[in-house]
Amino acid sequence: MKKEALFILKIGGNILNNPAGLDSFLLALQAYKDHNIILVHGGGKLLETMAQKTGVRQTKIDGRRITDAATMELATMVYAGSINKTVVAKMQALSIPAIGLTGADGNAMRAKKRQHPDINFGLVGDVQSAGINANFISSLIELNMVPVFCSITHDGNGQLLNTNADTVAGNLAIAMAGQYEVHLYYCFEKAGVLQDQQDENSVIKEISLTSLDSLIVDGTISEGMLPKLENAFQAKHQGVETVAISSAENIHAFFTHSSPGTIII
Amino acid sequence: MKKEALFILKIGGNILNNPAGLDSFLLALQAYKDHNIILVHGGGKLLETMAQKTGVRQTKIDGRRITDAATMELATMVYAGSINKTVVAKMQALSIPAIGLTGADGNAMRAKKRQHPDINFGLVGDVQSAGINANFISSLIELNMVPVFCSITHDGNGQLLNTNADTVAGNLAIAMAGQYEVHLYYCFEKAGVLQDQQDENSVIKEISLTSLDSLIVDGTISEGMLPKLENAFQAKHQGVETVAISSAENIHAFFTHSSPGTIII
Repeated sequence: MKKEALFILKIGGNILNNPAGLDSFLLALQAYKDHNIILVHGGGKLLETMAQKTGVRQTKIDGRRITDAATMELATMVYAGSINKTVVAKMQALSIPAIGLTGADGNAMRAKKRQHPDINFGLVGDVQSAGINANFISSLIELNMVPVFCSITHDGNGQLLNTNADTVAGNLAIAMAGQYEVHLYYCFEKAGVLQDQQDENSVIKEISLTSLDSLIVDGTISEGMLPKLENAFQAKHQGVETVAISSAENIHAFFTHSSPGTIII
Repeated sequence: MKKEALFILKIGGNILNNPAGLDSFLLALQAYKDHNIILVHGGGKLLETMAQKTGVRQTKIDGRRITDAATMELATMVYAGSINKTVVAKMQALSIPAIGLTGADGNAMRAKKRQHPDINFGLVGDVQSAGINANFISSLIELNMVPVFCSITHDGNGQLLNTNADTVAGNLAIAMAGQYEVHLYYCFEKAGVLQDQQDENSVIKEISLTSLDSLIVDGTISEGMLPKLENAFQAKHQGVETVAISSAENIHAFFTHSSPGTIII
């Protein structure tokens, strides 16, 4: 029997920091509300704003946030509270049957506190597809719900963990690929991975593992894009049908399988 | 066919403000995790702490909080984010299959912005049993989940609203009474409604509408207790099987139907 399609969309700061952008993204999504959909959202600027207001100092090592207990509490407030519920309430207003979740809810996503020989990242969790409760998530989809995940997970021992949203989306896609034909879409600020950062029309239509190497060597792919691409390749190589990287404006192309932005092959 | 039992427990600040109290409450609940359970939680002190830290001024009229937009955002962070997810993660660690929700999730609870001739309460919502999506909630219970509701609701037009947790619990109980034999338990700091506030052993075993009047007249029932009792009586008179008011320490008596604390008759 052919598997049903499941569309997993990851949205980030460029949509979440901008109420009009979020509204127009959700309005575009509304046209596909009868599809099987999971939304994963990242953070945006609100966490840093709240950290400043409350005097919680933010430490970064190599551009990666160290999550101490006070930052973890703020992240839970901002991601699982403010952002997640704002998105869900807006979706309900559009009759998209959203249900907002962290990885702790329904034991949906268990992560492991990151271990690193030199750096203590604090309450940062690494999620793997084996930690994802695909049966629970698919039972929500069978109830015609649209799960909306923020990137807060838990360790199963009562500790919430801060997790990278791109990694959450990638591993969720891998875990759901057993039951669904999964299409994974990373929405970001550009129309795709660009050959020339100054030219929005220079979208690279396809990236393979072979072409990736030369794109890294010649500097086309920046350091910021690399982790996203690693998640994308991992998903593609572990049974996810389509992995695409493009802008929110292209979601119609994604749902109609007309190759939006950059496709991982 | 006899309806299945459903136990709805409302917990408030006296448990939430005290990590050890929350842990021992959840440990007691663990013994009953195979029962149909819904947890409703209120706020506690964290909202005021966050308001102070972020400089969001709190206005009260007649002891009732006015919820402006900035306070609503903080309430969403604190109730739906920090408190709700902390409780859910702790429950998961005890293998209680919790799922944390606001009224926006799954369109579970729709409320109306409070209209008052003289006072603008701001983003305060009044929920009624008709606004509760009993089918969605029972489908979660049929998946063996324990829904954990904070008292954030929505208006269906994208606006989150701040709602009284006692009223949420009461109306939830009424709405679920069509499908379940509902037992509603208000946990608070005392063993029950006390005849003498100085004597913890003076618990009034039963309160009827008739006895309520005289208890109000003679000052036994304080102004703070009245709204809780109003919710309790409304639930009892609209099909809820048991309504009890007692302390968290008495939940064993509640689950075993051995009349804990004060019972509404």
